[in-house]
Amino acid sequence: MPRFNPLIARLSPPPVPSVLAWAKAYDGARGPLIDLSQAVPGYPPHPEMLKWLGEAAASPAYAGYGAIEGEQVLRAAYATHVSSLYNASINARNIHITSGCNQAFISTVIAIAGAGDTVLMTNPFYFNQETTLAMLGIGVELVPCDASDGFLPDIDAIASSLKPGVRALALVTPNNPTGSVYPPALLRRIYDLCRANKTWLILDETYRDFLGEGSGAPHDLLALEGWQDGLICLYSFSKSFCIPGHRLGAITAGLAVVRQVAKVMDNLQICAPRSAQAAVARALPALDDWRASNRAEIGRRAEALRQVMSKLTGWKLQAIGAYFAYIRHPYPDISSEFVAEKLAKIAGVVCLPGDYFGEGQEGYLRFAFANADVPTILKLEERLSTFHLPGI
Amino acid sequence: MPRFNPLIARLSPPPVPSVLAWAKAYDGARGPLIDLSQAVPGYPPHPEMLKWLGEAAASPAYAGYGAIEGEQVLRAAYATHVSSLYNASINARNIHITSGCNQAFISTVIAIAGAGDTVLMTNPFYFNQETTLAMLGIGVELVPCDASDGFLPDIDAIASSLKPGVRALALVTPNNPTGSVYPPALLRRIYDLCRANKTWLILDETYRDFLGEGSGAPHDLLALEGWQDGLICLYSFSKSFCIPGHRLGAITAGLAVVRQVAKVMDNLQICAPRSAQAAVARALPALDDWRASNRAEIGRRAEALRQVMSKLTGWKLQAIGAYFAYIRHPYPDISSEFVAEKLAKIAGVVCLPGDYFGEGQEGYLRFAFANADVPTILKLEERLSTFHLPGI
Ligand SMILES: Cc1ncc(COP(=O)(O)O)c(C=O)c1O
Ligand SMILES: Cc1ncc(COP(=O)(O)O)c(C=O)c1O
Repeated sequence: MPRFNPLIARLSPPPVPSVLAWAKAYDGARGPLIDLSQAVPGYPPHPEMLKWLGEAAASPAYAGYGAIEGEQVLRAAYATHVSSLYNASINARNIHITSGCNQAFISTVIAIAGAGDTVLMTNPFYFNQETTLAMLGIGVELVPCDASDGFLPDIDAIASSLKPGVRALALVTPNNPTGSVYPPALLRRIYDLCRANKTWLILDETYRDFLGEGSGAPHDLLALEGWQDGLICLYSFSKSFCIPGHRLGAITAGLAVVRQVAKVMDNLQICAPRSAQAAVARALPALDDWRASNRAEIGRRAEALRQVMSKLTGWKLQAIGAYFAYIRHPYPDISSEFVAEKLAKIAGVVCLPGDYFGEGQEGYLRFAFANADVPTILKLEERLSTFHLPGI
Repeated sequence: MPRFNPLIARLSPPPVPSVLAWAKAYDGARGPLIDLSQAVPGYPPHPEMLKWLGEAAASPAYAGYGAIEGEQVLRAAYATHVSSLYNASINARNIHITSGCNQAFISTVIAIAGAGDTVLMTNPFYFNQETTLAMLGIGVELVPCDASDGFLPDIDAIASSLKPGVRALALVTPNNPTGSVYPPALLRRIYDLCRANKTWLILDETYRDFLGEGSGAPHDLLALEGWQDGLICLYSFSKSFCIPGHRLGAITAGLAVVRQVAKVMDNLQICAPRSAQAAVARALPALDDWRASNRAEIGRRAEALRQVMSKLTGWKLQAIGAYFAYIRHPYPDISSEFVAEKLAKIAGVVCLPGDYFGEGQEGYLRFAFANADVPTILKLEERLSTFHLPGI
């Protein structure tokens, strides 16, 4: 008899720690390490953010158990934020706070699908979504996203995959790993297809705040009549506020969904950590300008990477978006995992191999370019142009 | 087609919020509310604990993502603590930090069992363990715990339930809801039975720190050769440090278990909140005396409740232990849910009905007596003696 759940035993070890281990093996010969692996903005949290986190954590007011669905102040502040961003009217009761967006995803998925059900995703995909479904025994079907189409999901493939019994289609926009930003009109067509098949559309918008200036609402779905019966939106406070260590995310959904998710969350961890919720409730309106300036800064970083890539031969910037760039490496016959490992160990450039994000991705590397400032990004030109795989 | 996972849709709403809603309906006529529902010590966290929580939360050092298994400082501090408590030699690598003990339970369970497998529990049980298994489609079999036997699990029933394919036996000691403390020798016999059947023994020891003075090691299992292949111990920092809002718990297990749990945790929420881990790492050795004095105080509370109960007629103190008392109410034909609701609304005494903890528990109420100080507990005499169910 196996001692472990075979669905878990056959999962690979979590990818990020393995990649960070390659980074540790870099000897510094080419200059300081450039870490473009796990997506965390390279600038620190705002000083006020840290102050508020400290104040709330030191307060006895947040020491006890809290409401499963989240602190009322944060649910209300986030509902206001979402309402204004999407020109919609979202109530605090539509918000369920979680310990980060991975938890928002798993609690949503458990609420709507069980072992033996099917959920659609894209290929490439965000790996934790795929491993989450796999570990729960939920079947995964993949919708291809073609490089030649900017890695947008193929709408005909979605239409033909939406059979009865498909519980949800999970999309990530702006996309991880490709950076691709799904246009509102495409999202609307996908949503309509899902509605017609009674399939939930789950949108992970973790990187939404890094969209370029003046890009308007990411989509109009939350303003549609009856969105509650078809749409579930996920978000992370980790990236925009630079506080992944405090573990906060949010689900925006209909009341019936929130009710089911609360049952799941009670089992998963009762409630999200409370003091950070109080702090983010203050930060959400107050740090709007700071977040806008970060957005502008990340735009400059994208521009710097474009410049660098245009000067390199053999390397191709296949796609670039709100936070990530998806880059074709110069070794068509060699897996990206091998290339990424050598790149980390020899050139001190740490990124994630495309292999980790799905089938047929061995030609790509994911650069979380927004991690690094412009001068650092500019150093990539020399690092990449002088890099050669040993023995090739 | 159902829109929700039927395993979730058929779960009742989380019990604690429903009970707190009864409390809200109390008009104060009998004096201040006495809340013996959710287990949270009535005293505040230690001032130093709050200071350390504040300092760590305000530090940029804990803003980024952390190690999945937990902060090294806390894993090491907790390993030292466990080693000394159990006369064992536990390494930091045997520790996996989680967001509370509910999460310790679900991540352990997912690591070892999937939909269609079977896990044994006791009747009565801690309800979140039962709902966790149910929501994952894991079959539950129950081992009876008889009132006449101090609610200890029946060893013959365990022996005959341990068939091939039973992945784990989950026990809670000191017990929630009955308070019952399982003697080391009984735990050793149960462990041996589980080992012989290749079934994991999961021990939730959330209330361990409230055991009476000089009670010695709760069991000797962690000191046995090869414990790593049969035992997984769960713990919560919520109760002992009065910080449930900060969400921290721990798993003590063999390296192979920790490795599987890390894959699950990466999907559940990447890592537990970091700054609180750093604060608890300081508190664990430093607040030892404070915890000892709380233990003595809770002993006095138990004594006060024993006194009160001995003076009441109709009410019976069926069992009392480290944190909880399990009390037979005077209405044999009426379900404890109804009695508890009226007790909250009319007498301002909030407790959990036995019904929530399993089959055949309708005659009992669970009092989390350790929540309330001695003067408050003494008030129960008048509240309970003058209480009558309306219309009876
Ligand atoms: C698409 C996507 N969703 C969710 C997450 C997890 O974020 P959180 O830190 O909120 O759990 C990430 C983090 O990398 C992500 O890229
Ligand atoms: C037996 C038992 N296990 C686990 C928990 C959950 O504790 P935590 O706050 O660490 O999730 C509780 C809380 O009431 C409990 O009684």
